[in-house]
Amino acid sequence: MKIKYNLLKNEKNTEARYGTIETNYGTYETPMFMPVGTRATVKGLSPDEIYDLKSGIILANTYHLWLRPGEDLIDRAGGLHKFMNYKGPILTDSGGFQVFSLARPKDITEEGVKFKSHIDGSKLFLTPEKSIEIQNKLDSDIAMSFDECIPYPATYEYSKDSVERTIRWAKRGKSVFNNPRQSLFGIVQGGEYEDLRKHCALELVKENFDGYSIGGTSVGENKETMYKMVSYSTKYLPKDKVRYLMGVGDPIDIIEGVIRGVDIFDCVLPTRIARHSNAFTKYGKINLKNSKFKEDFTPIEPDCDCYACKNFTKAYIRHLVTLNEMLGSRLLSIHNIRFLTRLTEDLRECIKNDNIIEYKEEFIKNYYGDKDYLKIETTGQGE
Amino acid sequence: MKIKYNLLKNEKNTEARYGTIETNYGTYETPMFMPVGTRATVKGLSPDEIYDLKSGIILANTYHLWLRPGEDLIDRAGGLHKFMNYKGPILTDSGGFQVFSLARPKDITEEGVKFKSHIDGSKLFLTPEKSIEIQNKLDSDIAMSFDECIPYPATYEYSKDSVERTIRWAKRGKSVFNNPRQSLFGIVQGGEYEDLRKHCALELVKENFDGYSIGGTSVGENKETMYKMVSYSTKYLPKDKVRYLMGVGDPIDIIEGVIRGVDIFDCVLPTRIARHSNAFTKYGKINLKNSKFKEDFTPIEPDCDCYACKNFTKAYIRHLVTLNEMLGSRLLSIHNIRFLTRLTEDLRECIKNDNIIEYKEEFIKNYYGDKDYLKIETTGQGE
Repeated sequence: MKIKYNLLKNEKNTEARYGTIETNYGTYETPMFMPVGTRATVKGLSPDEIYDLKSGIILANTYHLWLRPGEDLIDRAGGLHKFMNYKGPILTDSGGFQVFSLARPKDITEEGVKFKSHIDGSKLFLTPEKSIEIQNKLDSDIAMSFDECIPYPATYEYSKDSVERTIRWAKRGKSVFNNPRQSLFGIVQGGEYEDLRKHCALELVKENFDGYSIGGTSVGENKETMYKMVSYSTKYLPKDKVRYLMGVGDPIDIIEGVIRGVDIFDCVLPTRIARHSNAFTKYGKINLKNSKFKEDFTPIEPDCDCYACKNFTKAYIRHLVTLNEMLGSRLLSIHNIRFLTRLTEDLRECIKNDNIIEYKEEFIKNYYGDKDYLKIETTGQGE
Repeated sequence: MKIKYNLLKNEKNTEARYGTIETNYGTYETPMFMPVGTRATVKGLSPDEIYDLKSGIILANTYHLWLRPGEDLIDRAGGLHKFMNYKGPILTDSGGFQVFSLARPKDITEEGVKFKSHIDGSKLFLTPEKSIEIQNKLDSDIAMSFDECIPYPATYEYSKDSVERTIRWAKRGKSVFNNPRQSLFGIVQGGEYEDLRKHCALELVKENFDGYSIGGTSVGENKETMYKMVSYSTKYLPKDKVRYLMGVGDPIDIIEGVIRGVDIFDCVLPTRIARHSNAFTKYGKINLKNSKFKEDFTPIEPDCDCYACKNFTKAYIRHLVTLNEMLGSRLLSIHNIRFLTRLTEDLRECIKNDNIIEYKEEFIKNYYGDKDYLKIETTGQGE
């Protein structure tokens, strides 16, 4: 079935919205954070563990799965759900972001993008039709249109040409799309230029996609610019379709995105920082390798309900990460993903109670202290 | 409490025995296989997962924990159980094996062993008293006496001197042992010489240890020699105490050990081979990287009840291990440990049914085919 978004409540003072999305694998509340399972595995975690974190949808990367093990193999396995044995919904990206970030040099034409594999340097060609064909075979629940993800900064002229191409590519992809149990999203690009974002959004909306993504943020701009890009996009999107901000998972960015009307987020951040021994906490990120945790026999966060916090101390996790024991990054991944899903649970409550601004201010005070977070550069996507 | 071994049934045709051991954390059936959690973690697995594999006791390494994070830290954490949050019984070794295998060069005197840390080269000194003191603080359920683990081959003269020292060391350790909830085992050494094994066993038995280990096998001898070493030891051990064959986990060695009257085994093999993409199966080890599994959409073993076999195909696990995804070695570790615990469950049934020899012959036919397994060199211990 096509996903269905139900808008249940608007927050009084902002664009924030509480809703649900109905999918092939159940109905989930939004705002929502999706963990990233780049290569059909959320690094270190079993599908059961991910499901228990109450994330709902997870993301898998078309580019990576196209190269290894290949969409035909996954098709013969019975699709991505069966291949990785995940019982919740799965969203696939288009491969566009990876082509533009991982695989260089590239040659962008109207037809598609020629580039070299980041694995063995072999020549590859990805087109809007090919991206859809791969995703149709992967049999995810939600597929993305193939887009050009431009760097930041980019000139107005380049951004304009690119956005027109992205719109044409979205239409071409949609015309070959043929998986009836899959939904297809259009991706709003346009860099930092409001008129381009608006134009892109309105053109895509004419095509009546099943949902809309916001791309081209989280590419090195500062947070203030990112938030503008988001506002310039959500502003022109229909109320009755879900909005997904791609590759964004810094806690404050999730809050600011929700305030601007975003429903879904994804990011590798929680698992990537876990592999570098970091944990999210209410009071900012902490590095578990720090010697101050050597004899800290309390959990990462005493009020967190995750498996790591309910069962292990910082001292034990420090022991594990210091010795590069796998269980260390696994426990930190569990905590970090749960931290972000708990954040979205909080935000849903805030929307119901019309107090998201107070929540945000309190969050910033605790998380950043005296730092001006608006000047922080965004981090890239991809593991 | 001290552990208590209950001998419930002798197999009619061999020395194999079925029994139970009562511990601080429940009663478990023997023969039993213990997974190894070298540094207070069974590599990649959570303590809950290990417990669910029905292994019962797990092993942790005194040498590694002494160096990092240190026994005092674990003592302040409330002991090893609380530190790593394992709800089953834990056995610690004495550190002897690691001192003789990992840490070189060494200087063995009557007092103890001087050696250099394998981590930073710092000078260390381990004595029988120190080993017990460390283990008392770790607060495992079962502690080992400090012994000299001699290489193979070793001359009769060297082995004789060494075994006398091992007996004196066992007595010294016992005299300072002071943890009332912990049990203490003596370790039978003596290399390949029956009179030395006998002498060691009888001298230790006079001390009335809570159980007896068999050491100095799995040091590069062939299987035939290993099995002799085991027979030379179990033959002289009391029926009413548990027997533990240290560092042995090759499936056929478990079977042959059980036939010779061994109750408990431990080995890093299931987790170590998992990290090299290997899985135990009834028909021998398989390497999941092998391209023949690329589109094999069946589990590792269709009749295995482990989480990996119940949920994932060889094709998916091959995908994971080919890309070095953590979940791959985790799933293989789960399967391999469960393979060995299922083997011990089978052996318990064989003892009850007096058909262990038939079981062994069938096992060898399936597992080795035409290979003469008796000529295979034993692998070393330690991860």
